[in-house]
Amino acid sequence: MKINEILGKRYKEKPNDAKLKSHELLLRGGYIRPVSSGIFSVLMPGLRVLKNIENIVRQEINNVGGQEVEMPLVQPKELWQESGRYEAINDELVRFKDRNDHDNVLAMTHEEAAVALARTEATSYKDYPFSIYQFAKKFRDEARPRGGLVRVKEFTMKDAYSFHRDLDSLNKTYLEYAIAYDRIFARAGIPEVISIQSDSGMMGGKIAHEYMLLTPSGEDTIITCDKCGYKANKEVAVSKIAVKNGDEEMLALEKVHTPDIKTIEDLAKHFGIETYRMAKAVVYKNPTTNQAVIVMIRGDREVNENKLAKILQFVPEFADDAVFAASGIVPGFASAYGAKNAIVVVDESLRNERNLITGANERDYHIKNFNVERDLPDAKFADVASVMDGDTCAICGAPIKVNRGIEVGNIFQLGDKYTTPMKMTYTDENGTLQTPIMGCYGIGIGRLMASVIEAKHDDRGPIWPVSIAPWVVSVTALASKNPEIDTVKIAGDLYEQLQKAGLSVLLDDRETSAGEKFADIDLLGIPLQLVASQKTLEQNQIEVKVRETGEKTLIDLDKVVAYAIDWVRAENEKLMDIAANVKGLDTSFIKK
Amino acid sequence: MKINEILGKRYKEKPNDAKLKSHELLLRGGYIRPVSSGIFSVLMPGLRVLKNIENIVRQEINNVGGQEVEMPLVQPKELWQESGRYEAINDELVRFKDRNDHDNVLAMTHEEAAVALARTEATSYKDYPFSIYQFAKKFRDEARPRGGLVRVKEFTMKDAYSFHRDLDSLNKTYLEYAIAYDRIFARAGIPEVISIQSDSGMMGGKIAHEYMLLTPSGEDTIITCDKCGYKANKEVAVSKIAVKNGDEEMLALEKVHTPDIKTIEDLAKHFGIETYRMAKAVVYKNPTTNQAVIVMIRGDREVNENKLAKILQFVPEFADDAVFAASGIVPGFASAYGAKNAIVVVDESLRNERNLITGANERDYHIKNFNVERDLPDAKFADVASVMDGDTCAICGAPIKVNRGIEVGNIFQLGDKYTTPMKMTYTDENGTLQTPIMGCYGIGIGRLMASVIEAKHDDRGPIWPVSIAPWVVSVTALASKNPEIDTVKIAGDLYEQLQKAGLSVLLDDRETSAGEKFADIDLLGIPLQLVASQKTLEQNQIEVKVRETGEKTLIDLDKVVAYAIDWVRAENEKLMDIAANVKGLDTSFIKK
Repeated sequence: MKINEILGKRYKEKPNDAKLKSHELLLRGGYIRPVSSGIFSVLMPGLRVLKNIENIVRQEINNVGGQEVEMPLVQPKELWQESGRYEAINDELVRFKDRNDHDNVLAMTHEEAAVALARTEATSYKDYPFSIYQFAKKFRDEARPRGGLVRVKEFTMKDAYSFHRDLDSLNKTYLEYAIAYDRIFARAGIPEVISIQSDSGMMGGKIAHEYMLLTPSGEDTIITCDKCGYKANKEVAVSKIAVKNGDEEMLALEKVHTPDIKTIEDLAKHFGIETYRMAKAVVYKNPTTNQAVIVMIRGDREVNENKLAKILQFVPEFADDAVFAASGIVPGFASAYGAKNAIVVVDESLRNERNLITGANERDYHIKNFNVERDLPDAKFADVASVMDGDTCAICGAPIKVNRGIEVGNIFQLGDKYTTPMKMTYTDENGTLQTPIMGCYGIGIGRLMASVIEAKHDDRGPIWPVSIAPWVVSVTALASKNPEIDTVKIAGDLYEQLQKAGLSVLLDDRETSAGEKFADIDLLGIPLQLVASQKTLEQNQIEVKVRETGEKTLIDLDKVVAYAIDWVRAENEKLMDIAANVKGLDTSFIKK
Repeated sequence: MKINEILGKRYKEKPNDAKLKSHELLLRGGYIRPVSSGIFSVLMPGLRVLKNIENIVRQEINNVGGQEVEMPLVQPKELWQESGRYEAINDELVRFKDRNDHDNVLAMTHEEAAVALARTEATSYKDYPFSIYQFAKKFRDEARPRGGLVRVKEFTMKDAYSFHRDLDSLNKTYLEYAIAYDRIFARAGIPEVISIQSDSGMMGGKIAHEYMLLTPSGEDTIITCDKCGYKANKEVAVSKIAVKNGDEEMLALEKVHTPDIKTIEDLAKHFGIETYRMAKAVVYKNPTTNQAVIVMIRGDREVNENKLAKILQFVPEFADDAVFAASGIVPGFASAYGAKNAIVVVDESLRNERNLITGANERDYHIKNFNVERDLPDAKFADVASVMDGDTCAICGAPIKVNRGIEVGNIFQLGDKYTTPMKMTYTDENGTLQTPIMGCYGIGIGRLMASVIEAKHDDRGPIWPVSIAPWVVSVTALASKNPEIDTVKIAGDLYEQLQKAGLSVLLDDRETSAGEKFADIDLLGIPLQLVASQKTLEQNQIEVKVRETGEKTLIDLDKVVAYAIDWVRAENEKLMDIAANVKGLDTSFIKK
């Protein structure tokens, strides 16, 4: 390709709305253009990267026995009613009526379609196990699209679905996919992606892992322990919270006047103490019964509602005035102490803390010297706190780290979550109908491209690994004043030779400044950059720059093609070597 | 791939709802499964064919300078308002509101998105010409999906858009794409596809060609002349209609009583004459003004409403009672003779016909001896008749042929139909803003797969060309009773060797009947079928069957791999040879 033939302007200025580096560089490099919020068109350089990623993913998923299929984006309502998701999912799921007044959805994922496709075909035990996958468009009506390709509405995902007769088979395939995922990220140039056991959220099921690229720009929070290797999404992470004030003797309860002082911060100021000396009450309700749920937690901690929901076995909602009234709770002065008819959950952060301040459930009053063990003797302790910087590892006691991350993939053990309601069965060896179980495995292709940029870039542009670069080599012709040195012709010849050798090559023989040429090649992230200039060619040499290191070498003109071929091969081998040595999952989740 | 690992049942029974052979075989062979009306999932064998087709299309479009991009399916209303299509297209265009109450559409084609993408990037004359293309999902809410993949709602299309400064440049690219199209169809195994100049319909613009596979199952009607090469879609085709009754003298008009006789057929019976002795009136209205439009046409011909709309310069609708009343037209007894306030169009089929029967615009009465030239002296003749079998070529006078066809591709010269309303401009050499013109070029990938089956199949299944076959070679192991002939092992070894040679191979080593194995391999349309049987292996030979010809050969076991490799290479070369000799378009449409 000649650079002047590529549709898409490249520019230096940082776009106003681009907060993530990947978003900025994808716009500046002419990789993508917005169509509307969370919806993009992809220009040629972007599509070349996406297709390279797709091919790596295809190879690795084929290698673990996936068979490629294609399922539609538009699906009838009935399919989603079978699984219960038509009702369970809110605004994220786009619904529309067709010309015959039938209700349809735009699929966000394809569990329903996969079961519908498989259940008519895999009716005998002999058909199992198997897995199908696709690269298919999805649509989610995201409330807050952000970060360019990191969180979008319309996107292409590699989604795979495996079907099994039993958990052993599912575990086996699950571990194979995990290896494939490690290999995919390694080959795409980000072997640093980690897998963490996750909460499977909307997908249901029990075992799930997320693949996270740790990066300050991520929107997920991941807790890691360098010592013992513990790692978890903040949603489910546990930690040890040091007792701050466990040595005091319990003092007598005392009601104190705190006029209009309602927040933890104001109370701390008022009494001149730290927030961890408070027992904060956060009041929810059971949305079905309207019963109050009071979470007592230390004043310096936040409730992790995901953990709370698991303890409660339902998803709590914030309480309203009717709930407060029914339980005798006074907002701003709330406490489980003195409340009635409420479910009380005491976070572990309050265990052994002494003489705290809590609400009096009376306007303008708090209570001093509150001690859970004495004053709420029947209350149950549970871990419902969000992990914070400074906590220690629940397993080994070392200090934990709080990291930000982008989720670049996920794998789920769905069990029979879809197969049972959708009545998928097969006949076993004894002629008995059985329900298969499932796993599902996703990688967002566009998000993976953006993540590689987050991990590998400088201010001049992305630093693409050779495995996914839009072009692996560039040849730039600089202006020559020496009539005997035709840089354009020499560059053109190199371009032809490199192409013949099977490399993807970009030629820049424009009549424009050297500065613009170098900026463009860096914005396109070309791994190996050849420059034909008068100066070096007078010594019969070509300057070769490695994008990643910035290292420049002069190579004899007649050796430079072989040099480039060798360099690209070596870089590819490096990536394949890393992929050959991936570890897969810690298998401790498998119950023996 | 081992055949038992492929998800998807294959079966013998003809599915009830499959009228087209391609639909039947795609279902029976486990290529596709319906999800809802006009919406399908594609199983692995189908996807492999689709991807092979896609790769051929990609190579050919890259060769004519197309650059691959990707544009979204979900698009904001505003984009379609810019072109005017948001209002112009009816129920085919799916519209929905997102969670923020914004109106969106599911794109049916991508002219708007292509202009929106290109107009910010191609702002200088130096950027022209260029063309972009994609393989992207489209959605059309078809009123009557039919024929499996022939007419669907959700489909993947290769759609390309070229942008030009002038018509010469557009014509050049247009002809290049036409060659690419001929090559694509040749490489996909259907070189018999013909291009015909077409009505560009909804797309607008002036010059357009459709690529038609002539087949009795097609839904389009194409008129061809074997002698002079004339070919046209019925929508726009012209022909010479022989005068049936031109020699008579004009007789005096005569009103005749025809009680309750309203149809041409009943009149013919009543008078004992042929229908061509009638002058039929078909009554429309101008939907804007409600003025009546009376088309007078010979009783044995039908009105071509597409031609009529071009004459009228508006799309007529059928008349209603108010229109009849306003023009003094009596339905069942209608004629332009005696009507008032009506636009009258007389089809050429009535020229020089003498003494016809027409309506009297009076209940239960017709008129005899009607002669247009005498009785409607001011009426304008025009060609608004559908061409029929038996007509002669308007150009050379030879008998025309009426064929059925499937449209497998199309190319359009759009001119400034989109660029002007969407305000796309570039700056020319003089600093003046100019509007570019466009071409667009579509091929439906799924429909092309179905069309190849329509052209190449027998009752046992599709006959795939090697270029797009899901697997090019199969190895089938038949049961052996001779313990020294391990057919399964021999078949497995051949499978390995053929795979190592880079061929796509399917292995059938199931313990099932020979009949089922042969049926499955034929349903999968494998071009070259190797069979390892006890009988031939006792002579150290493998039976090799060519799917297309049915020809069977015995090849020595140690030579069969080389034989298969040579055979596949030769078949591929045959297709490439045909592609190398395609002719492209008759360039007579280019005005000098």
